[in-house]
Amino acid sequence: MRTIEWKDGVVTTVDQTKLPNQTVLLKMTSCDEVVKAIKTMQIRGAPLLGAAAAYGLALTAYYSKAGDRGRLVEELSASAQFLKTTRPTAMNLFWAIDRVMEKAKKTEGNAVVVVRAVVEEAQRIAAEDVDVNRRIGEHGSALLDYGDTILTHCNAGSLATVDYGTALGVIRTAWKNGKGIKVIATETRPLLQGARLTVYELLRDSIPVTLITDSMVGYVMAKGLVNKVVVGADRIVKDAVVNKIGTYTIAVIAHEHGVPFYVAAPKSTFDMNRLVGDVVVEERSTEEVVRFCGVQVAPKGVPAFNPAFDVTPMKYVTAIICEEGVLSPADFHKLSTA
Amino acid sequence: MRTIEWKDGVVTTVDQTKLPNQTVLLKMTSCDEVVKAIKTMQIRGAPLLGAAAAYGLALTAYYSKAGDRGRLVEELSASAQFLKTTRPTAMNLFWAIDRVMEKAKKTEGNAVVVVRAVVEEAQRIAAEDVDVNRRIGEHGSALLDYGDTILTHCNAGSLATVDYGTALGVIRTAWKNGKGIKVIATETRPLLQGARLTVYELLRDSIPVTLITDSMVGYVMAKGLVNKVVVGADRIVKDAVVNKIGTYTIAVIAHEHGVPFYVAAPKSTFDMNRLVGDVVVEERSTEEVVRFCGVQVAPKGVPAFNPAFDVTPMKYVTAIICEEGVLSPADFHKLSTA
Repeated sequence: MRTIEWKDGVVTTVDQTKLPNQTVLLKMTSCDEVVKAIKTMQIRGAPLLGAAAAYGLALTAYYSKAGDRGRLVEELSASAQFLKTTRPTAMNLFWAIDRVMEKAKKTEGNAVVVVRAVVEEAQRIAAEDVDVNRRIGEHGSALLDYGDTILTHCNAGSLATVDYGTALGVIRTAWKNGKGIKVIATETRPLLQGARLTVYELLRDSIPVTLITDSMVGYVMAKGLVNKVVVGADRIVKDAVVNKIGTYTIAVIAHEHGVPFYVAAPKSTFDMNRLVGDVVVEERSTEEVVRFCGVQVAPKGVPAFNPAFDVTPMKYVTAIICEEGVLSPADFHKLSTA
Repeated sequence: MRTIEWKDGVVTTVDQTKLPNQTVLLKMTSCDEVVKAIKTMQIRGAPLLGAAAAYGLALTAYYSKAGDRGRLVEELSASAQFLKTTRPTAMNLFWAIDRVMEKAKKTEGNAVVVVRAVVEEAQRIAAEDVDVNRRIGEHGSALLDYGDTILTHCNAGSLATVDYGTALGVIRTAWKNGKGIKVIATETRPLLQGARLTVYELLRDSIPVTLITDSMVGYVMAKGLVNKVVVGADRIVKDAVVNKIGTYTIAVIAHEHGVPFYVAAPKSTFDMNRLVGDVVVEERSTEEVVRFCGVQVAPKGVPAFNPAFDVTPMKYVTAIICEEGVLSPADFHKLSTA
């Protein structure tokens, strides 16, 4: 099953806050429900956020009672604005919303025609993501050697995308190509996407995986246990990669040990017009830090800090793997100034 | 109250696995109970392990039915061997055991005299630790500036020692000296000594503290939020500092950002005759990584890796703060080759 699916005005996905202990399906029939699922991280992962936002607009269109296209586009604009307030950092969310809105505005004809165009555009975004991930997988697999141990952070797998995954897409393709690789997954505090989701996906595919805490990255690198790092991205600006908190720490450690650091992400993650200073790093509730899987860990009342992302300057990035191939930071810079 | 106390053949400490939610006192009357408490980490922290091991021998002596000193020393040797099997990495454990055993062997007189000498030596080790920590605090405080934000890892506080603390001793003294410092504490997975114990101690002393996950170290350093790092140590060999897993990662990040990295530890932590290759890094149960507080975090059956310590080469260490003053790595090297 794809991580997100549309059928007859119902968008179905899996509640990622409940995995791996429970597989709970979420069925959504309004953009408001999509917004809520994104805010609570039942839906997460940059490419998946793009598809989910597109489907949110598709739901608005599908259930709209607007008789004329002007009113429909107004309703869609309101939904688009609402969706954009959910999470500030992932580029794909904004990219998908803008793409669907442009389609709606450019489509000629009456409201019925626009509704169909919006739903089709959302479907196209989802389908393209699967294809893009497979192409990322092929390009990235070529970078991995037989017997490599790959360290990955957070979850950039099929659960972070419509299907297949970005960083885990690279790992999956290498595994299918018989490269006999192994994976070290960081647990990824505070929300444990590595321990809960990446490990779950890799066990399901029988790809060998060992779980570590985020604090063990230095030790495993110093011991020579990691050949390459492959992570996803939430936004790639001219001079840096924005990804799940902890990524930058891993990049510095990899750099110190001469371990290649690859970022696997679709072009919809690229934000060519911005520098890192322009990026809003979302800060989430301190409850995520002071509690651990629902258990109060730290004494009550302690202040905590909870940035959801960090920023890895390009000097630490060996290459970016996208659907069109492998870009060195210099290639990427050329692209971004073209 | 001191973290560990001897009174009339009863050794009392606080069960550190239960803090901060519950304050449960442990009362021990045999060396076997001390061994068990160390293995389960109800007692932890390098200097405290030294005092606890000394008290373990004191309990063996105090309750011994050996009529002659030869038999008594044999019983003490057996307890010493047993204590040495508990945890392989912390130097202070071995140092304290060897010191008490030497005292027992060198004390002239009958069994009663030797029992008294052993108990007194254990008491002396505990009392000295408090004094040593206060001296470490004074030397270290001089390195901190007004308004500094200090990052610390794990717990090197009064709970890791007999009283006052090493890294937190430095922070406490600076605070008492009116330096208006703030602390960022890493939670320290897997056993969360930072979130549970360091935060608890600092809140109790009204020293401003903010909790972060281990994965946030890179972000806070890149943001310029940290002026200095102060950590404890479990063993310092000629060429490296061995401390709680995660320390090395922090040291590399600090080095990358030009943030001074200080290690506060008593001389009983120094292991001058060894290089890092000689140190056994304890690997603990994978259950600590895949579960927490009875909550299964990762899917069942996933392999995990759980080294309890890591190794920070001296090139990342700005200075070592001990009871005799502040040693640069070069000073330390001279001392270790003297």
